[in-house]
Amino acid sequence: MANCIVAQSGGPSSVINATLAGIIKANQLNPIYGRVLGGINGIEGILQERFVDLTKMTEYENLVLRQTPSSALGSCRYKLKRDNLEDFEKIMNIMEKYDVETLFYIGGNDSMDTVASLSEYAAKNHITNRRFIGCPKTIDNDLEQIDHAPGFASSAKFIATTAWQCWQDVNVYPSSRKEVFILETMGRDAGWLAASACLSEIVDVLIVPEVNFDRDTVLEEIRSCIEKKSKCFVVISEGAHYPDGTYVSAGEARNDLFGHAVLGGAGKELAQMIYDAGISERCKVQDLANAQRCHASEQSLVDVTESFRLGMSAHMRSSDPKFTGKMVSIRRRTDVEEYDVEFTAVDADRVANFVRNFPVKWLLPDFRGITEEAIEYMRPLIQGTPDIIMKNGLPEHTVPYYMRDCEIEKL
Amino acid sequence: MANCIVAQSGGPSSVINATLAGIIKANQLNPIYGRVLGGINGIEGILQERFVDLTKMTEYENLVLRQTPSSALGSCRYKLKRDNLEDFEKIMNIMEKYDVETLFYIGGNDSMDTVASLSEYAAKNHITNRRFIGCPKTIDNDLEQIDHAPGFASSAKFIATTAWQCWQDVNVYPSSRKEVFILETMGRDAGWLAASACLSEIVDVLIVPEVNFDRDTVLEEIRSCIEKKSKCFVVISEGAHYPDGTYVSAGEARNDLFGHAVLGGAGKELAQMIYDAGISERCKVQDLANAQRCHASEQSLVDVTESFRLGMSAHMRSSDPKFTGKMVSIRRRTDVEEYDVEFTAVDADRVANFVRNFPVKWLLPDFRGITEEAIEYMRPLIQGTPDIIMKNGLPEHTVPYYMRDCEIEKL
Repeated sequence: MANCIVAQSGGPSSVINATLAGIIKANQLNPIYGRVLGGINGIEGILQERFVDLTKMTEYENLVLRQTPSSALGSCRYKLKRDNLEDFEKIMNIMEKYDVETLFYIGGNDSMDTVASLSEYAAKNHITNRRFIGCPKTIDNDLEQIDHAPGFASSAKFIATTAWQCWQDVNVYPSSRKEVFILETMGRDAGWLAASACLSEIVDVLIVPEVNFDRDTVLEEIRSCIEKKSKCFVVISEGAHYPDGTYVSAGEARNDLFGHAVLGGAGKELAQMIYDAGISERCKVQDLANAQRCHASEQSLVDVTESFRLGMSAHMRSSDPKFTGKMVSIRRRTDVEEYDVEFTAVDADRVANFVRNFPVKWLLPDFRGITEEAIEYMRPLIQGTPDIIMKNGLPEHTVPYYMRDCEIEKL
Repeated sequence: MANCIVAQSGGPSSVINATLAGIIKANQLNPIYGRVLGGINGIEGILQERFVDLTKMTEYENLVLRQTPSSALGSCRYKLKRDNLEDFEKIMNIMEKYDVETLFYIGGNDSMDTVASLSEYAAKNHITNRRFIGCPKTIDNDLEQIDHAPGFASSAKFIATTAWQCWQDVNVYPSSRKEVFILETMGRDAGWLAASACLSEIVDVLIVPEVNFDRDTVLEEIRSCIEKKSKCFVVISEGAHYPDGTYVSAGEARNDLFGHAVLGGAGKELAQMIYDAGISERCKVQDLANAQRCHASEQSLVDVTESFRLGMSAHMRSSDPKFTGKMVSIRRRTDVEEYDVEFTAVDADRVANFVRNFPVKWLLPDFRGITEEAIEYMRPLIQGTPDIIMKNGLPEHTVPYYMRDCEIEKL
């Protein structure tokens, strides 16, 4: 019986490990592969033959893995280039050496390009007994050919929860005190994450990359909000930019006490604009930074369950010898009223290197937030709270495999 | 039957409302007071006779209140000054007008000063039928005369959880990539919050206000850590300062209405030092900012339960006509092996305007973290996860009373 490799790539998410857990569990339910090997640090570690054997993971380990954020197998930013044939040959040789029939690659659109290029290479070279299958993940929700990307909903839930809580925080002082709160989220090209803050229903001003930043309009909206209720809650994507493409965060360097230039994030730059315009003397900035992609305490049950099942679906489909160059995808059912999904397969090269933006038609004019339709799209995704296994007062987590001395012997 | 007022002051926490909920519930179990009035925006709103009637809150509302972060009654930074007799007279008159026998004030050490000064004023003026009782809260854990302050543990749990998760995040890339992660916490004078990150057991370098910032030693520790394992996880208090008292974040410092410095930015300053010293080309900074005091999703069950019971204890003790000028406190039991507490009372003026620092003897040398004794002190406080009532995928929250049109008619 041949083996399979699972590896992870790109930025972490709160549920990327659930897809890994799904593949492992599916192989226990129906052992298509003799061994499920975890590839350490994505394609980069596979090229170095760094593997762990995950075949016999216990149910408890599997449950803990599902609730562990970030990539338990480690990640990489290494990208296969189609003209670097050496890498492709090496991967085929390693797969042969370890008797690996299928490589599951969990990641974003760069990873889908890896899947597509490996599968193209195999086809061109008449290698028919190797399959390459992509499992999507990205908190940014900017993947094409899928209703929503696993990982997005848990980040959205964290962002919306934090927005609500920070809004509670900023409002506690008497209304005479003017105050602007700015929440900065990730999202270089796509505004999904920033928009998800609107699930809290308290966002006054929303700035996403899909609409050029217009200083005057934004400041006018904030000023009018402050005049009306003395507080204003702003959400801004890190990728907010001017019409010429310059990032808001690329604003002027300021010198700190030590004479060093300090570049602020988009939120800090906006705060400075607000000070300069005399709109409010108080601006607090909360940059969610890394926490928004790894704060698994806000895992959405829908998200983690779908991610797990997506892994199972990928494993089950992979028994078809012709199933290669595909990404397993999620389609929202339209034949039923309540929210439900079905798993499908799409060609990986239709996902690779595309970006799906937040629909501009879902944005209200003048940076005033999002439409009801957008809320209806996102709301079902953040439902449910998984039971979290705790240890010593903190969530129990899988110790990352890339840190363990448990790599399998090189054959 | 006379009435009581409950009000909240100072910065928000994840469990300050649990103390309010405890007072309300205790009065339902044993109606000492005809009405439990919520004072809006602390002493400032009381002076304006802004009240809501909380007497008949339902059990569901009470449960939701306990899980709602920040101050549902609003807060203030208004401080009674002992030489401003007008305020004191006005408060006594308002209490008489509304037939209020007891004022419960939930807050930090500024609030305990309010309790002490009101009680002193009443004593001096032979006003014997008014009682002033303090209920402690502060995420900073810097109150004297108490084992630990309600609110600290939930923030500690959020910080330690986030530290663990961010550490997972920063480590996913191959070990050849050098990277420093800097987590910045609140804590102007006391390092409790920063130290609590060490509950995650992954902190390499810890910088708190209790030990002067020593640039050379800190950078040397980070450099040695990077050389050893190519990653380094640093936690720094916003109040980290040089021997002459200058804050590390001095470039960003401003003063608030009380003349306290508004901090934030120590992490960014440190990142710049790391770049300048050529230790690592990658430094990520996560400033937990407001989220650490209002991210109620990480409420510790121990913390929220103790806060609730502390409110009940304050209410029950207040039936004693002589119980005034006191703060209800928490003492850790030493007569049993497992963690347990008892509630006591201390003079509010022994708490007011003091700061309890993180014990220097609990700090390891050269900014290397904290001792096992410190961990043993904190670990029991973060235990347990409350069942959270959800709505639409987000935690159900009490709509702040200061935003409602439900103020009671002025008599």
